[in-house]
Amino acid sequence: MDSKKFRCIKPEIRVLGIDDGQFIPRTKGIVDVVGVVYRGGLWFEGVTHTQITIDGLDATEKMAEMIKTSPYYPELRVVVLDGITFAGFNIVDISALCRIVDLPVISVVRDKPDFEDIEVALKNLPDFEYRWRAMQNAGQLFEVKTRDGENPIFVHLSGILFEDAQKILKKTSTRSNIPEALRVAHIIASGLTKKIEKI
Amino acid sequence: MDSKKFRCIKPEIRVLGIDDGQFIPRTKGIVDVVGVVYRGGLWFEGVTHTQITIDGLDATEKMAEMIKTSPYYPELRVVVLDGITFAGFNIVDISALCRIVDLPVISVVRDKPDFEDIEVALKNLPDFEYRWRAMQNAGQLFEVKTRDGENPIFVHLSGILFEDAQKILKKTSTRSNIPEALRVAHIIASGLTKKIEKI
Repeated sequence: MDSKKFRCIKPEIRVLGIDDGQFIPRTKGIVDVVGVVYRGGLWFEGVTHTQITIDGLDATEKMAEMIKTSPYYPELRVVVLDGITFAGFNIVDISALCRIVDLPVISVVRDKPDFEDIEVALKNLPDFEYRWRAMQNAGQLFEVKTRDGENPIFVHLSGILFEDAQKILKKTSTRSNIPEALRVAHIIASGLTKKIEKI
Repeated sequence: MDSKKFRCIKPEIRVLGIDDGQFIPRTKGIVDVVGVVYRGGLWFEGVTHTQITIDGLDATEKMAEMIKTSPYYPELRVVVLDGITFAGFNIVDISALCRIVDLPVISVVRDKPDFEDIEVALKNLPDFEYRWRAMQNAGQLFEVKTRDGENPIFVHLSGILFEDAQKILKKTSTRSNIPEALRVAHIIASGLTKKIEKI
Protein backbone atom coordinates (compact mmCIF):
# COMPACT_ATOMS: atom_id res chain seq x y z
CA MET A 1 0.00 0.00 0.00
CA ASP A 2 1.23 3.49 -0.73
CA SER A 3 2.12 5.55 2.27
CA LYS A 4 -0.39 8.33 2.75
CA LYS A 5 0.91 11.43 4.40
CA PHE A 6 -0.87 12.37 7.66
CA ARG A 7 -2.47 15.78 7.36
CA CYS A 8 -2.00 16.34 11.05
CA ILE A 9 -1.08 14.20 14.03
CA LYS A 10 -3.30 15.05 16.99
CA PRO A 11 -1.88 14.61 20.49
CA GLU A 12 -4.84 12.31 21.17
CA ILE A 13 -4.45 10.19 18.00
CA ARG A 14 -5.93 6.73 18.62
CA VAL A 15 -3.20 4.10 18.63
CA LEU A 16 -3.70 0.33 18.90
CA GLY A 17 -0.73 -1.44 20.52
CA ILE A 18 -0.57 -5.23 20.14
CA ASP A 19 1.48 -7.78 22.09
CA ASP A 20 1.24 -11.49 22.83
CA GLY A 21 0.95 -13.29 26.14
CA GLN A 22 3.19 -15.84 27.78
CA PHE A 23 3.66 -19.35 26.46
CA ILE A 24 6.18 -22.14 26.51
CA PRO A 25 8.30 -22.02 23.31
CA ARG A 26 8.25 -25.01 20.97
CA THR A 27 5.08 -26.42 22.50
CA LYS A 28 1.80 -26.72 20.63
CA GLY A 29 -1.16 -24.59 21.46
CA ILE A 30 -2.56 -21.11 21.33
CA VAL A 31 -1.37 -17.81 22.73
CA ASP A 32 -3.45 -14.82 23.78
CA VAL A 33 -2.89 -11.59 21.93
CA VAL A 34 -3.97 -8.34 23.56
CA GLY A 35 -4.61 -5.05 21.81
CA VAL A 36 -4.76 -1.83 23.81
CA VAL A 37 -6.23 1.41 22.50
CA TYR A 38 -4.67 4.62 23.75
CA ARG A 39 -5.41 8.24 23.01
CA GLY A 40 -1.93 9.25 22.00
CA GLY A 41 0.43 8.71 24.90
CA LEU A 42 -2.19 9.88 27.36
CA TRP A 43 -5.32 7.86 28.06
CA PHE A 44 -6.23 4.23 28.16
CA GLU A 45 -9.32 3.75 26.04
CA GLY A 46 -9.99 0.07 25.45
CA VAL A 47 -8.86 -3.51 24.99
CA THR A 48 -9.23 -6.09 22.27
CA HIS A 49 -8.27 -9.74 22.23
CA THR A 50 -7.55 -12.64 19.92
CA GLN A 51 -5.66 -15.91 19.97
CA ILE A 52 -3.01 -17.26 17.60
CA THR A 53 -1.22 -20.56 17.15
CA ILE A 54 2.29 -21.15 18.51
CA ASP A 55 4.66 -21.18 15.51
CA GLY A 56 1.57 -21.02 13.27
CA LEU A 57 0.76 -18.96 10.19
CA ASP A 58 -2.38 -17.19 11.39
CA ALA A 59 -1.05 -14.05 13.15
CA THR A 60 -1.72 -11.66 10.25
CA GLU A 61 -5.22 -12.92 9.63
CA LYS A 62 -6.23 -13.11 13.32
CA MET A 63 -4.91 -9.64 14.09
CA ALA A 64 -6.65 -8.20 11.03
CA GLU A 65 -9.91 -9.78 12.14
CA MET A 66 -9.44 -8.53 15.72
CA ILE A 67 -8.86 -5.00 14.45
CA LYS A 68 -11.71 -4.91 11.93
CA THR A 69 -14.30 -6.30 14.34
CA SER A 70 -13.28 -4.01 17.20
CA PRO A 71 -15.69 -1.21 18.18
CA TYR A 72 -12.63 1.06 18.23
CA TYR A 73 -11.77 0.35 14.59
CA PRO A 74 -13.46 3.40 13.00
CA GLU A 75 -11.43 5.74 15.21
CA LEU A 76 -8.06 4.02 14.98
CA ARG A 77 -5.34 5.81 13.06
CA VAL A 78 -2.30 3.57 13.50
CA VAL A 79 -1.38 0.06 14.64
CA VAL A 80 1.82 -0.53 16.62
CA LEU A 81 3.12 -4.08 17.00
CA ASP A 82 5.69 -5.54 19.36
CA GLY A 83 8.01 -6.78 16.61
CA ILE A 84 6.77 -8.97 13.79
CA THR A 85 7.19 -12.43 15.32
CA PHE A 86 4.44 -13.47 17.72
CA ALA A 87 3.83 -16.75 19.57
CA GLY A 88 7.23 -18.04 18.53
CA PHE A 89 7.57 -17.68 14.77
CA ASN A 90 4.02 -16.83 13.80
CA ILE A 91 5.04 -13.89 11.66
CA VAL A 92 2.90 -10.85 10.94
CA ASP A 93 3.13 -9.66 7.35
CA ILE A 94 2.83 -5.96 8.18
CA SER A 95 2.37 -5.08 4.54
CA ALA A 96 -0.63 -7.44 4.26
CA LEU A 97 -1.99 -6.31 7.66
CA CYS A 98 -1.78 -2.68 6.59
CA ARG A 99 -3.63 -3.46 3.34
CA ILE A 100 -6.39 -5.54 4.98
CA VAL A 101 -7.18 -3.12 7.81
CA ASP A 102 -6.38 -0.01 5.76
CA LEU A 103 -4.28 1.48 8.55
CA PRO A 104 -0.59 2.25 8.82
CA VAL A 105 1.38 -0.36 10.77
CA ILE A 106 4.54 0.28 12.79
CA SER A 107 6.44 -2.70 14.18
CA VAL A 108 8.65 -1.73 17.11
CA VAL A 109 11.59 -3.54 18.69
CA ARG A 110 13.97 -2.34 21.35
CA ASP A 111 16.97 -4.35 20.12
CA LYS A 112 18.18 -4.53 16.55
CA PRO A 113 17.02 -7.92 15.22
CA ASP A 114 19.57 -10.39 13.85
CA PHE A 115 17.96 -11.45 10.59
CA GLU A 116 20.55 -14.14 9.93
CA ASP A 117 19.65 -15.87 13.20
CA ILE A 118 15.97 -15.56 12.38
CA GLU A 119 16.51 -17.06 8.91
CA VAL A 120 18.28 -20.06 10.44
CA ALA A 121 15.44 -20.56 12.94
CA LEU A 122 12.79 -20.25 10.25
CA LYS A 123 14.50 -22.93 8.17
CA ASN A 124 13.76 -25.39 10.97
CA LEU A 125 10.03 -24.76 10.62
CA PRO A 126 7.57 -25.82 7.92
CA ASP A 127 6.48 -23.18 5.38
CA PHE A 128 9.85 -21.43 5.38
CA GLU A 129 9.09 -19.58 2.14
CA TYR A 130 5.83 -18.15 3.50
CA ARG A 131 7.44 -16.98 6.74
CA TRP A 132 10.50 -15.59 5.05
CA ARG A 133 8.38 -13.61 2.58
CA ALA A 134 6.38 -12.16 5.50
CA MET A 135 9.70 -11.15 7.11
CA GLN A 136 10.92 -9.53 3.92
CA ASN A 137 7.62 -7.70 3.42
CA ALA A 138 8.47 -5.80 6.59
CA GLY A 139 10.94 -3.87 4.45
CA GLN A 140 13.60 -1.52 5.70
CA LEU A 141 14.52 -1.24 9.39
CA PHE A 142 14.66 2.34 10.68
CA GLU A 143 16.20 3.65 13.87
CA VAL A 144 14.16 6.19 15.85
CA LYS A 145 15.20 8.10 18.94
CA THR A 146 11.86 8.58 20.69
CA ARG A 147 13.13 10.18 23.90
CA ASP A 148 16.15 12.23 24.82
CA GLY A 149 18.64 10.37 26.94
CA GLU A 150 17.12 6.94 26.23
CA ASN A 151 18.05 4.19 23.79
CA PRO A 152 16.69 4.41 20.25
CA ILE A 153 14.15 1.86 19.02
CA PHE A 154 14.04 0.03 15.69
CA VAL A 155 10.97 0.01 13.50
CA HIS A 156 9.53 -1.52 10.34
CA LEU A 157 6.87 0.55 8.61
CA SER A 158 3.98 -0.14 6.29
CA GLY A 159 1.62 2.46 4.81
CA ILE A 160 3.27 5.35 6.60
CA LEU A 161 6.08 7.74 5.80
CA PHE A 162 9.12 7.59 8.06
CA GLU A 163 8.64 11.26 8.96
CA ASP A 164 5.05 10.66 10.17
CA ALA A 165 5.96 7.44 12.00
CA GLN A 166 8.73 9.28 13.80
CA LYS A 167 6.34 12.05 14.90
CA ILE A 168 3.75 9.55 16.15
CA LEU A 169 6.34 7.48 18.01
CA LYS A 170 7.77 10.55 19.72
CA LYS A 171 4.35 11.90 20.70
CA THR A 172 3.06 8.62 22.10
CA SER A 173 6.18 7.43 23.95
CA THR A 174 5.29 9.42 27.05
CA ARG A 175 6.43 7.01 29.73
CA SER A 176 9.20 4.94 28.13
CA ASN A 177 10.89 4.78 24.74
CA ILE A 178 7.93 2.91 23.17
CA PRO A 179 4.32 4.08 22.64
CA GLU A 180 2.10 3.84 25.72
CA ALA A 181 -0.39 1.58 23.91
CA LEU A 182 2.40 -0.95 23.35
CA ARG A 183 3.91 -0.65 26.84
CA VAL A 184 0.51 -1.28 28.42
CA ALA A 185 -0.45 -4.08 25.97
CA HIS A 186 2.74 -5.83 27.04
CA ILE A 187 1.95 -5.50 30.76
CA ILE A 188 -1.59 -6.80 30.30
CA ALA A 189 -0.67 -9.59 27.86
CA SER A 190 2.13 -10.94 30.00
CA GLY A 191 0.55 -10.27 33.38
CA LEU A 192 -3.02 -11.32 32.83
CA THR A 193 -3.66 -13.71 30.00
CA LYS A 194 -1.73 -16.68 31.32
CA LYS A 195 -3.36 -16.49 34.71
CA ILE A 196 -6.90 -16.29 33.38
CA GLU A 197 -6.25 -19.02 30.83
CA LYS A 198 -4.73 -21.44 33.31
CA ILE A 199 -7.51 -21.61 35.87
CA MET B 1 -8.82 0.03 61.90
CA ASP B 2 -8.15 3.59 62.90
CA SER B 3 -7.86 6.04 60.05
CA LYS B 4 -4.30 7.22 59.73
CA LYS B 5 -3.86 10.67 58.33
CA PHE B 6 -1.79 10.83 55.11
CA ARG B 7 1.30 12.97 55.65
CA CYS B 8 1.24 13.95 52.01
CA ILE B 9 -0.55 12.76 48.90
CA LYS B 10 1.86 12.61 45.98
CA PRO B 11 0.47 13.17 42.48
CA GLU B 12 1.93 9.75 41.58
CA ILE B 13 0.50 7.89 44.59
CA ARG B 14 0.08 4.21 43.71
CA VAL B 15 -3.58 3.26 43.57
CA LEU B 16 -5.00 -0.23 43.01
CA GLY B 17 -8.42 -0.20 41.30
CA ILE B 18 -10.43 -3.43 41.43
CA ASP B 19 -13.42 -4.49 39.34
CA ASP B 20 -15.04 -7.77 38.34
CA GLY B 21 -15.62 -9.25 34.89
CA GLN B 22 -18.79 -10.24 33.12
CA PHE B 23 -20.95 -13.16 34.21
CA ILE B 24 -24.52 -14.34 34.01
CA PRO B 25 -26.37 -13.42 37.23
CA ARG B 26 -27.86 -16.18 39.35
CA THR B 27 -25.76 -18.87 37.69
CA LYS B 28 -23.09 -20.86 39.46
CA GLY B 29 -19.44 -20.41 38.72
CA ILE B 30 -16.52 -18.09 39.08
CA VAL B 31 -15.89 -14.54 37.94
CA ASP B 32 -12.60 -12.90 37.07
CA VAL B 33 -11.52 -9.95 39.16
CA VAL B 34 -8.94 -7.57 37.75
CA GLY B 35 -6.80 -5.14 39.71
CA VAL B 36 -5.04 -2.29 37.93
CA VAL B 37 -2.20 -0.29 39.46
CA TYR B 38 -1.94 3.35 38.45
CA ARG B 39 0.46 6.05 39.44
CA GLY B 40 -2.10 8.60 40.60
CA GLY B 41 -4.35 9.49 37.69
CA LEU B 42 -1.45 9.38 35.26
CA TRP B 43 0.30 6.15 34.40
CA PHE B 44 -0.70 2.55 34.02
CA GLU B 45 1.73 0.47 36.02
CA GLY B 46 0.49 -3.10 36.35
CA VAL B 47 -2.27 -5.68 36.57
CA THR B 48 -3.28 -8.30 39.11
CA HIS B 49 -5.93 -10.98 38.91
CA THR B 50 -8.03 -13.31 41.01
CA GLN B 51 -11.29 -15.22 40.76
CA ILE B 52 -14.30 -15.24 43.07
CA THR B 53 -17.50 -17.26 43.31
CA ILE B 54 -20.81 -15.94 41.96
CA ASP B 55 -22.95 -15.01 45.01
CA GLY B 56 -20.22 -16.56 47.18
CA LEU B 57 -18.57 -15.38 50.39
CA ASP B 58 -14.93 -15.30 49.26
CA ALA B 59 -14.52 -11.80 47.77
CA THR B 60 -12.81 -10.24 50.82
CA GLU B 61 -10.40 -13.13 51.29
CA LYS B 62 -9.56 -13.52 47.59
CA MET B 63 -8.96 -9.81 47.08
CA ALA B 64 -6.81 -9.62 50.19
CA GLU B 65 -4.72 -12.54 48.93
CA MET B 66 -4.44 -10.97 45.46
CA ILE B 67 -3.23 -7.70 46.98
CA LYS B 68 -0.77 -9.20 49.46
CA THR B 69 0.85 -11.51 46.91
CA SER B 70 1.15 -8.83 44.23
CA PRO B 71 4.65 -7.53 43.43
CA TYR B 72 3.11 -4.04 43.59
CA TYR B 73 1.93 -4.49 47.19
CA PRO B 74 4.86 -2.78 48.96
CA GLU B 75 4.32 0.39 46.94
CA LEU B 76 0.52 0.54 47.11
CA ARG B 77 -0.99 3.32 49.19
CA VAL B 78 -4.74 2.89 48.66
CA VAL B 79 -7.25 0.38 47.27
CA VAL B 80 -10.27 1.57 45.31
CA LEU B 81 -13.15 -0.84 44.71
CA ASP B 82 -16.07 -0.68 42.30
CA GLY B 83 -18.76 -0.79 44.98
CA ILE B 84 -18.79 -3.50 47.61
CA THR B 85 -20.86 -6.18 45.85
CA PHE B 86 -18.92 -8.28 43.34
CA ALA B 87 -19.94 -11.28 41.25
CA GLY B 88 -23.56 -10.78 42.25
CA PHE B 89 -23.77 -10.58 46.04
CA ASN B 90 -20.28 -11.66 46.99
CA ILE B 91 -19.77 -8.76 49.37
CA VAL B 92 -16.43 -7.24 50.26
CA ASP B 93 -16.12 -6.34 53.92
CA ILE B 94 -14.01 -3.22 53.37
CA SER B 95 -13.24 -2.93 57.05
CA ALA B 96 -11.80 -6.49 57.10
CA LEU B 97 -10.00 -5.94 53.80
CA CYS B 98 -8.42 -2.75 55.11
CA ARG B 99 -7.26 -4.55 58.26
CA ILE B 100 -5.86 -7.62 56.45
CA VAL B 101 -3.92 -5.71 53.77
CA ASP B 102 -3.13 -2.76 56.06
CA LEU B 103 -4.15 -0.24 53.42
CA PRO B 104 -6.98 2.26 53.26
CA VAL B 105 -9.94 1.10 51.15
CA ILE B 106 -12.32 3.35 49.23
CA SER B 107 -15.41 1.81 47.66
CA VAL B 108 -16.81 3.94 44.84
CA VAL B 109 -20.22 3.91 43.18
CA ARG B 110 -21.65 6.33 40.64
CA ASP B 111 -25.26 5.97 41.80
CA LYS B 112 -26.49 6.15 45.36
CA PRO B 113 -27.18 2.55 46.42
CA ASP B 114 -30.65 1.57 47.65
CA PHE B 115 -29.84 -0.38 50.80
CA GLU B 116 -33.44 -1.48 51.31
CA ASP B 117 -33.44 -3.19 47.91
CA ILE B 118 -30.09 -4.80 48.70
CA GLU B 119 -31.38 -6.07 52.05
CA VAL B 120 -34.36 -7.71 50.33
CA ALA B 121 -32.07 -9.35 47.77
CA LEU B 122 -29.66 -10.58 50.43
CA LYS B 123 -32.53 -12.20 52.33
CA ASN B 124 -33.02 -14.53 49.36
CA LEU B 125 -29.48 -15.82 49.70
CA PRO B 126 -27.91 -18.15 52.26
CA ASP B 127 -25.73 -16.57 54.97
CA PHE B 128 -27.80 -13.39 55.16
CA GLU B 129 -26.30 -12.38 58.50
CA TYR B 130 -22.74 -12.65 57.22
CA ARG B 131 -23.48 -10.61 54.09
CA TRP B 132 -25.50 -8.00 55.93
CA ARG B 133 -22.74 -7.53 58.48
CA ALA B 134 -20.22 -7.03 55.65
CA MET B 135 -22.56 -4.42 54.16
CA GLN B 136 -22.90 -2.64 57.49
CA ASN B 137 -19.14 -2.71 58.08
CA ALA B 138 -18.88 -0.41 55.05
CA GLY B 139 -20.13 2.33 57.36
CA GLN B 140 -21.24 5.76 56.31
CA LEU B 141 -21.83 6.70 52.67
CA PHE B 142 -20.15 9.96 51.64
CA GLU B 143 -20.79 12.09 48.57
CA VAL B 144 -17.72 13.42 46.75
CA LYS B 145 -17.61 15.80 43.82
CA THR B 146 -14.43 14.69 42.05
CA ARG B 147 -14.69 16.94 38.99
CA ASP B 148 -16.28 20.28 38.26
CA GLY B 149 -19.34 20.02 36.05
CA GLU B 150 -19.70 16.25 36.51
CA ASN B 151 -21.92 14.16 38.75
CA PRO B 152 -20.70 13.43 42.28
CA ILE B 153 -19.78 9.89 43.28
CA PHE B 154 -20.65 8.01 46.47
CA VAL B 155 -18.05 6.33 48.62
CA HIS B 156 -17.61 4.09 51.63
CA LEU B 157 -14.31 4.43 53.47
CA SER B 158 -12.18 2.26 55.68
CA GLY B 159 -8.89 3.24 57.31
CA ILE B 160 -8.86 6.70 55.75
CA LEU B 161 -10.14 10.10 56.76
CA PHE B 162 -12.81 11.63 54.54
CA GLU B 163 -10.57 14.63 53.91
CA ASP B 164 -7.71 12.43 52.61
CA ALA B 165 -10.05 10.22 50.56
CA GLN B 166 -11.51 13.30 48.93
CA LYS B 167 -8.06 14.60 47.99
CA ILE B 168 -7.00 11.24 46.54
CA LEU B 169 -10.24 10.85 44.57
CA LYS B 170 -9.92 14.34 43.11
CA LYS B 171 -6.26 13.90 42.17
CA THR B 172 -6.73 10.51 40.53
CA SER B 173 -9.99 11.14 38.64
CA THR B 174 -8.18 12.64 35.69
CA ARG B 175 -10.30 11.32 32.86
CA SER B 176 -13.77 10.77 34.37
CA ASN B 177 -15.39 11.22 37.77
CA ILE B 178 -13.76 8.03 39.13
CA PRO B 179 -10.06 7.24 39.70
CA GLU B 180 -8.18 6.14 36.56
CA ALA B 181 -7.16 2.83 38.16
CA LEU B 182 -10.84 1.97 38.59
CA ARG B 183 -11.95 3.22 35.16
CA VAL B 184 -9.27 1.11 33.48
CA ALA B 185 -9.86 -1.96 35.71
CA HIS B 186 -13.48 -1.83 34.58
CA ILE B 187 -12.55 -1.68 30.88
CA ILE B 188 -10.13 -4.58 31.18
CA ALA B 189 -12.34 -6.71 33.42
CA SER B 190 -15.42 -6.35 31.26
CA GLY B 191 -13.63 -6.31 27.90
CA LEU B 192 -11.07 -9.01 28.30
CA THR B 193 -11.77 -11.63 30.95
CA LYS B 194 -14.91 -13.12 29.45
CA LYS B 195 -13.33 -13.53 26.05
CA ILE B 196 -10.19 -15.20 27.33
CA GLU B 197 -12.15 -17.40 29.69
CA LYS B 198 -14.62 -18.54 27.07
CA ILE B 199 -12.27 -19.91 24.47
